Amino acid sequence: MASSYNVAVVGATGAVGGVMLKLLEERSFPVKDIRALASSRSAGQTVIFDGVEVEVEELTPESFEGIQIALFSAGGARSKEFAPAAVAAGAVVIDNSSAFRQEPNVPLVVPEVNPEDIKWHEGIIANPNCSTIQMVVALKPIYDAVGIERIIVTTFQSVSGTGNKAIEELFSQAESVLESGEVAVNVYPHQIAFNVLPHIEHFHESGYTNEEVKMVNETRKIFGDPKIGVSATCVRVPVYNAHSEAVNIQTTRPISVEEVRRLMLSAPGVTLVDNPDADEYPMPLIAEGRDDVFVGRIRDDDSAENSLNLWVVSDNLRKGAATNAIQIAELLAAGGLLK
Amino acid sequence: MASSYNVAVVGATGAVGGVMLKLLEERSFPVKDIRALASSRSAGQTVIFDGVEVEVEELTPESFEGIQIALFSAGGARSKEFAPAAVAAGAVVIDNSSAFRQEPNVPLVVPEVNPEDIKWHEGIIANPNCSTIQMVVALKPIYDAVGIERIIVTTFQSVSGTGNKAIEELFSQAESVLESGEVAVNVYPHQIAFNVLPHIEHFHESGYTNEEVKMVNETRKIFGDPKIGVSATCVRVPVYNAHSEAVNIQTTRPISVEEVRRLMLSAPGVTLVDNPDADEYPMPLIAEGRDDVFVGRIRDDDSAENSLNLWVVSDNLRKGAATNAIQIAELLAAGGLLK
Repeated sequence: MASSYNVAVVGATGAVGGVMLKLLEERSFPVKDIRALASSRSAGQTVIFDGVEVEVEELTPESFEGIQIALFSAGGARSKEFAPAAVAAGAVVIDNSSAFRQEPNVPLVVPEVNPEDIKWHEGIIANPNCSTIQMVVALKPIYDAVGIERIIVTTFQSVSGTGNKAIEELFSQAESVLESGEVAVNVYPHQIAFNVLPHIEHFHESGYTNEEVKMVNETRKIFGDPKIGVSATCVRVPVYNAHSEAVNIQTTRPISVEEVRRLMLSAPGVTLVDNPDADEYPMPLIAEGRDDVFVGRIRDDDSAENSLNLWVVSDNLRKGAATNAIQIAELLAAGGLLK
Repeated sequence: MASSYNVAVVGATGAVGGVMLKLLEERSFPVKDIRALASSRSAGQTVIFDGVEVEVEELTPESFEGIQIALFSAGGARSKEFAPAAVAAGAVVIDNSSAFRQEPNVPLVVPEVNPEDIKWHEGIIANPNCSTIQMVVALKPIYDAVGIERIIVTTFQSVSGTGNKAIEELFSQAESVLESGEVAVNVYPHQIAFNVLPHIEHFHESGYTNEEVKMVNETRKIFGDPKIGVSATCVRVPVYNAHSEAVNIQTTRPISVEEVRRLMLSAPGVTLVDNPDADEYPMPLIAEGRDDVFVGRIRDDDSAENSLNLWVVSDNLRKGAATNAIQIAELLAAGGLLK
């Protein structure tokens, strides 16, 4: 077991890649050498790591020599093409794309929920979808305490999940609306500023979007519970960062709101913000830039037995992507699972 | 039965009052004389009706002499204070506030759902909450066809529901964010631009907001079904006009997605927009300025028996407020129920 590691960040110039670099530094991950990789288009740019300029190199199959941890966040196609080369070079790949999440030999890991699953990896560990991560972190203590039969979730997803171009588009569209100018639509099929789009990723024949299907399949895989019912409606909202979720659950056994609040107070990775009398509840603007999942508005749903509502907010670039990936790297390092 | 009517608009300078005046004109409601009423603060201003400037008069108990229809949209306190005077003067009050909605002798009417209820009014007819109206219009054909046991709804509510000041605040906050300036927070407890607030109206001890409680109670009263289960999460989003809703329902008997689509095609007041392959689904920007309720993203929810998801969008100033009120006035006129 080494005491420090050579780390590659694939997609280093992207929204998530940038946060990965920042977090490796913030969390004092033992980095021996950092390698910033991106497409040929971005090669030659520089990124900052630990106060030092690092030149971005073009991603090729030869990029991973000597690398022990490869953090991928450059889209599914690049993960599929280059992750095998990283594994062949001896690295453990922590992949933020959806490319491998449903592969039976790839663990899908949220450290607060199923840390034990990192042990059976065969070179690739998948980082779940942002919307799924924050939901399962909030639900894990309830799942363990009383079981969960069914989840109905509606998301309010920020544009940063789409990348830097979407953040720019939200701001430039907002500017155009305020100046009564023409709104340019490039990233999404419709204007996102001052609008909401019930559409994230492509549609399946069932009418569900791929994002909604991910929330079903990934929740089941992470909880190791193929029977848990999940119904999702995923919506893009004009927020630049942090996703919010209205989550309705039906538990197997009864649990009181007070008991759920107590569970949240001791849950790893969760901050309870549930003081309506003082207008305190989770919001994107308080979650942004923080690693925790914020939970509030916990209340009984008397429209069905054993039902509850919760409101769950988290920074999708952090816990929904980069933080979760770095936590997996930390688990690997702590467990002596790196070469 | 008269062929034209003296109409008073109470709250004529407000967001809903302005749309009421516009709609009386647009829908060619037979107006003999219009009286624009507002608080002393707004008295002396002018509003435009049918191309003519109308001076806004101060609302007093004496304002209703000769008035046959009084459209109130000036908040619950003013409705409570002045509606009895309007009724005493012989007017039928159509009240957009929540003041009388749960009174047993006040019908709560959505013309597409329970038009028959206008008959038993005793001078006051209540216009339901905006979020409730659009939901029950969309659900009525399903309710009639197969019954509905339970509704789980999450709302994405625009700021226009709060009034003109909130629209101004959204835009001025957005401007401040874009210019990296200081954001002033006055209307809501927190910044609404580029944020979402799971908080509409005051909180009850149960943890639910008053808006959420309204959706439960009003849905039951409009459907005349005290047993229907409703669980709501109401969220303010940075959209200037039109509310969106993710609605999950459990029906009494099974119904297919295709059958729901067919029902929507013939449902009064509903426009079906459900063509995901062409990126067509309801959005605030297409609903704004239109009277219909837009329904799409209809899909089976296999996490429970007889369950479905829908996405419902409507202009909250129109169908959620002014249009519904004018439709009630039209029903009264058509039914010979006005003096």
